[in-house]
Amino acid sequence: MTTCPTERDPTGSPGQAAFDGQDAAPGRALVIGTGLIGGSLGMALRRSGWHVAGVDTDPGVVESAVSLGAIDEIGDDPDADLVVVATPVHRSAAIIRDVLADPRRPSTTVVTDVGSVKASVLAAVDHPRFIGGHPMAGSEQVGIDGADPDLFVGATWVLTPSTTSDPIAYARLRSVVTGLGATVVALTADRHDALVAVVSHVPHLTAVTLMDLAASLAEEHGSLLRLAGSGFRDMTRVAAGRPSIWLDICADNAPAIVFTLDRLIDGLQAMRSRVAARDGASLGEILDRAALARRGLATHVPPTAGLTEVRVPVPDRAGVLAEITTLPADLGINVVDFEIVHSLEGAWGVLVLVVGSSDAATLSAALQERGYHPTSVSIETPV
Amino acid sequence: MTTCPTERDPTGSPGQAAFDGQDAAPGRALVIGTGLIGGSLGMALRRSGWHVAGVDTDPGVVESAVSLGAIDEIGDDPDADLVVVATPVHRSAAIIRDVLADPRRPSTTVVTDVGSVKASVLAAVDHPRFIGGHPMAGSEQVGIDGADPDLFVGATWVLTPSTTSDPIAYARLRSVVTGLGATVVALTADRHDALVAVVSHVPHLTAVTLMDLAASLAEEHGSLLRLAGSGFRDMTRVAAGRPSIWLDICADNAPAIVFTLDRLIDGLQAMRSRVAARDGASLGEILDRAALARRGLATHVPPTAGLTEVRVPVPDRAGVLAEITTLPADLGINVVDFEIVHSLEGAWGVLVLVVGSSDAATLSAALQERGYHPTSVSIETPV
Repeated sequence: MTTCPTERDPTGSPGQAAFDGQDAAPGRALVIGTGLIGGSLGMALRRSGWHVAGVDTDPGVVESAVSLGAIDEIGDDPDADLVVVATPVHRSAAIIRDVLADPRRPSTTVVTDVGSVKASVLAAVDHPRFIGGHPMAGSEQVGIDGADPDLFVGATWVLTPSTTSDPIAYARLRSVVTGLGATVVALTADRHDALVAVVSHVPHLTAVTLMDLAASLAEEHGSLLRLAGSGFRDMTRVAAGRPSIWLDICADNAPAIVFTLDRLIDGLQAMRSRVAARDGASLGEILDRAALARRGLATHVPPTAGLTEVRVPVPDRAGVLAEITTLPADLGINVVDFEIVHSLEGAWGVLVLVVGSSDAATLSAALQERGYHPTSVSIETPV
Repeated sequence: MTTCPTERDPTGSPGQAAFDGQDAAPGRALVIGTGLIGGSLGMALRRSGWHVAGVDTDPGVVESAVSLGAIDEIGDDPDADLVVVATPVHRSAAIIRDVLADPRRPSTTVVTDVGSVKASVLAAVDHPRFIGGHPMAGSEQVGIDGADPDLFVGATWVLTPSTTSDPIAYARLRSVVTGLGATVVALTADRHDALVAVVSHVPHLTAVTLMDLAASLAEEHGSLLRLAGSGFRDMTRVAAGRPSIWLDICADNAPAIVFTLDRLIDGLQAMRSRVAARDGASLGEILDRAALARRGLATHVPPTAGLTEVRVPVPDRAGVLAEITTLPADLGINVVDFEIVHSLEGAWGVLVLVVGSSDAATLSAALQERGYHPTSVSIETPV
């Protein structure tokens, strides 16, 4: 017997105090580190009806968080259903471990973080109710004064379930995040780190290198930076960001950054060869290819005409959650909704992934390849 | 005897039909190539009272130019006082030579171009009345439909006087350009090409390489581009631009591009070493330095408190104009106004550069080092 995942019946919930089943019905949250991301998250949660407590190592920052409406009160909340660690990455693992080891807290508390690198934290914290997160938002503003409850609306928010993750904790966190207007992409921590090296870390270091090169040449040629137009300004804008964050990122994601920098250097060497050889054909090819790809990046994916539930009966063994939830992202498929359908005895039995109907066959085939037996049901009303 | 450069007395002009002395009093212009830049220039000149004729190899484009108000009429204008060649770079040298060789045209016609690379054109056209130009504007829009009379307002517009340039032609062109709201930076053609390789050409090729790298990895990892935030979008925006322009640029400016790519690759190799060695101290240093430089790029130079005329009596020999006019840019000094003061007998005798009063001593010292004998006069009213 299963309950229907699209009919949210409170009587079918496992009786959590704060969460209505897997939904993000407002409860009590604790934000540790009330800077830009922590403060924005506090504002967004409070707007959704949550009670938010907050702490920060800087008393001025946490007082600003109260006066700006980012948190309800200063201090720990041992009853928090959700704890978000939004400190610098190098401090987060120890804090997460302390939170999870605190005997006063409910045994259902979900803990997440918001750091830009995920594998290092996961390696230091192996706990079913810690699910790593990374909201891809807010790189330019710094500090609580830039906090904005709309920061996450429309943003991609990566969650990194692991082989030991508690599926219920994952489903709840996912529901909170989507309730803030973000789109969840589930990735393994290693995959996340490899991908952000490509789209964030190495581009950032490249902007820094370009800016530094131009600045050093500007010492000889006073007019150089007066020739810097909108293209150069766009390309180097991120280099104005806060250096300390990037020291953490470089330390924690060094292998993926080095790997990607090597590929970029190879690419630039190939570009140099094309220019030196006046190889217009090869240059034209890569210019065309990149222009097409960049224009594609600007194109919004149109809303799907219809949605399909892909239901996956799963064995109760470790690793299933991570394998199934991270598969759609690898296939480039957006998961519109996600739910766990319990059998009456409380064991989780069926994962439900709601995807665009045009993606359902691809997802089902990939699941079948991995030994699962999904069934698909078209649903009338888009969620 | 000299006339005062700040009192523009029409009776002291050399009798040009279209130019009021060296000022940009409206006359007749011919725009060859009515795309984005040519069309915008036509609009801006017409707004200033010029009569603008235009031609283009594409009949549809030139007809659009008329209907959009970019030109008054289609076709050549043998009486044009100013001819702007705004074709693709690889076609411009031949067209400029033809214009200058046309016996129907006045012997005072000033010819300029708007290409992104300057030394190759200058090498192909050695004529006193051809002054190369490069308005640093309009990289993203393409074609006559994006034409905008305000495109040049506040933009930097490089002029590249050479050792054979006619000083009067230079002064007139400079006056036209500043009359459109642009700020002139005078550079030798070689210096221009070296500097735009740093702030434009290599950044563009880097954006292309980054975009291509990400797109190729996205084939394996479907979710990669969903993680691309505003930083990545900023850094790769220019890669969506029209490839054909960049083939011309790479062909014409290959040596400077290769030189700069090598420096960028060296910089990225050094960055890789810092990350691989977890050298936080060295990383912090370059991150701080680049952040400071990038923030400086965003800072507008405040208006100077006062202006000073630096008057330079000059011998009548080739190369003086290029040497004196390109010196301020090398020193990072903005020239607010420029004029040539004639002696009564018509030979040009004194160059007047109006600069911020705080820059006057630096400029005078640099001129003295080069054997000139400048005098400085503070002027009351900023121009």
